[in-house]
Amino acid sequence: MIRFVDRAAFAAALAELPAPDAGAAAAAAERQRVLTKPAGSLGRLEEIALFMAGWQRRERPRAERIRAAIFAGNHGVAARGVSAFPAGVTAQMVANFRHGGAAINALAQACGAELAVVALDLERPTGDICAEAAMSEADCLSAINAGAAAAEEGLDLLLPGEMGIANSTPAAALCAQAFGGAAAHWVGRGTGVDGEGLARKADAVSLALALHGAHCADAFETLRRLGGREIAALAGAVLAARMLRVPVMLDGFIGCAAVAPLAKDNPAIVDHCMAAHMSAEAGHERLLAALALEPLLRLDMRLGEGSGAAVAAQIVRSALAAHGGMASFAEAAVAGAL
Amino acid sequence: MIRFVDRAAFAAALAELPAPDAGAAAAAAERQRVLTKPAGSLGRLEEIALFMAGWQRRERPRAERIRAAIFAGNHGVAARGVSAFPAGVTAQMVANFRHGGAAINALAQACGAELAVVALDLERPTGDICAEAAMSEADCLSAINAGAAAAEEGLDLLLPGEMGIANSTPAAALCAQAFGGAAAHWVGRGTGVDGEGLARKADAVSLALALHGAHCADAFETLRRLGGREIAALAGAVLAARMLRVPVMLDGFIGCAAVAPLAKDNPAIVDHCMAAHMSAEAGHERLLAALALEPLLRLDMRLGEGSGAAVAAQIVRSALAAHGGMASFAEAAVAGAL
Repeated sequence: MIRFVDRAAFAAALAELPAPDAGAAAAAAERQRVLTKPAGSLGRLEEIALFMAGWQRRERPRAERIRAAIFAGNHGVAARGVSAFPAGVTAQMVANFRHGGAAINALAQACGAELAVVALDLERPTGDICAEAAMSEADCLSAINAGAAAAEEGLDLLLPGEMGIANSTPAAALCAQAFGGAAAHWVGRGTGVDGEGLARKADAVSLALALHGAHCADAFETLRRLGGREIAALAGAVLAARMLRVPVMLDGFIGCAAVAPLAKDNPAIVDHCMAAHMSAEAGHERLLAALALEPLLRLDMRLGEGSGAAVAAQIVRSALAAHGGMASFAEAAVAGAL
Repeated sequence: MIRFVDRAAFAAALAELPAPDAGAAAAAAERQRVLTKPAGSLGRLEEIALFMAGWQRRERPRAERIRAAIFAGNHGVAARGVSAFPAGVTAQMVANFRHGGAAINALAQACGAELAVVALDLERPTGDICAEAAMSEADCLSAINAGAAAAEEGLDLLLPGEMGIANSTPAAALCAQAFGGAAAHWVGRGTGVDGEGLARKADAVSLALALHGAHCADAFETLRRLGGREIAALAGAVLAARMLRVPVMLDGFIGCAAVAPLAKDNPAIVDHCMAAHMSAEAGHERLLAALALEPLLRLDMRLGEGSGAAVAAQIVRSALAAHGGMASFAEAAVAGAL
């Protein structure tokens, strides 16, 4: 299990990311070449097979041990009226996750994923990022390590998700800090705020950037000042997964925003990540472009919880079923191209 | 089981298509409204649930009995060098389907679908559409009924697929006949023909349209003159599914082209159909626009066999798992929007 002893260890891990196994990916590409179909005709399914082969270090990668991990946290900035739902919903939804009634429960089951629910000090919201840092150094490290613990060696795929009323506001702040641009370019309607709520979100992001922007020296400090516990946990999970060579399916706007500070320090952090979908949340298209990720799905989803990642995991299952299960031209006695 | 006694019965069925159950769809919409998520946040997954509810006539539709049906046929026009593969591959691939080695075998298994393989007189290719009608009236009716037999009452979803070396040429002819436009707009590289092959395809489509265009009075006659056995079977399966209120997931260019003559006579034929994906085949985007269908996936697939439909069926499974499995706000004691 990965555990970062301090912020320096986190930074060091982010600076020295392992690469995929080029030999396994090449073997998978060679296998694709002889399967009974026109070359390239499975499109992105073939790319997924090669990607998974490289990270799992096997010619025929698997999608048997999939874990969806939902991180939940509460946010001081919620008091500024930036969400359509009351802050108490975070804890209520965690109970819903635990009782099996949320979208991610059904969607994880549909793709054969186990579900881990990691609630982070819900009774103790983070500091209001417009007025202070979200977390102390110890709090941030603790959240990162809670996330890292969800990445386990031998997992075939990790689906990190999040729940936290008001968390699209710190997510927008993280994007603006990492990639620049006006606050208004990164905020969206989240769970469904009206026009005034949207204006309050943009104001909150602007205030937070004015206060913290000059002090965000690296990914850890950015997560600590502008993030939240579930966001730091998600970042920790993605980095730990990389160290264990577990491929990751990123979910929507907040799931990708958690990776933004890491990508600013080392853009290669997304090399073991796929983007599940293009969310309906306004800033997500810009964010995926900044991370250089092409989403697998465009289904106008905007729920979070890892829901889009769990749907996209179905595509991975199909891709690996074809890659692993098909016969070759020789095995099936089928003639190749003229 | 649906069986059309003659071409008039086929035309009559196409003229009187049943509608979905508005009450079941409304009940599903009401259920979506109270599930524990922001309203509309599952995007197209919610639309799929309502669509399936209407056709299955139940508030909580199922994705348990899914059938992939592959229709295979051979084409006289193959002798004109319009495919990258030899015509013998059709029969070889049918053997591959039956032995479980093709992409559709793996992809059907991944989505929990049973697989029906329907080979149609492979040793007797259709007539060369550039010189004669593809089929006699009896041949065409027989192929349509072979397809209709694959649609069974009580199926939750039908995934019609096709295999037939050279069949993207008759498919392009069907599109041009139904929706107009130059032959060159409807032909593509299929399994991977080169530039000269592509030119031969456009020439073949132009010749076929010049010979048959004025005589294509209705869907049956168009399928008979310009289609092929697996294409007529696919059209028969889609119409029979409609009569049985079985929803259909259309696959790629050829799977949609088989519906084009039906849509020309009655555009409502696609009301029980979803479009699985946007194929990489050149004419598919234009064809989906003409059919007014928005594809679920864009994965650069171009294999046929129902492969894209089987991948998209995974999305349906996820959509219905969320719709059927989630708790309501009241059941989970979660607060609604402010």
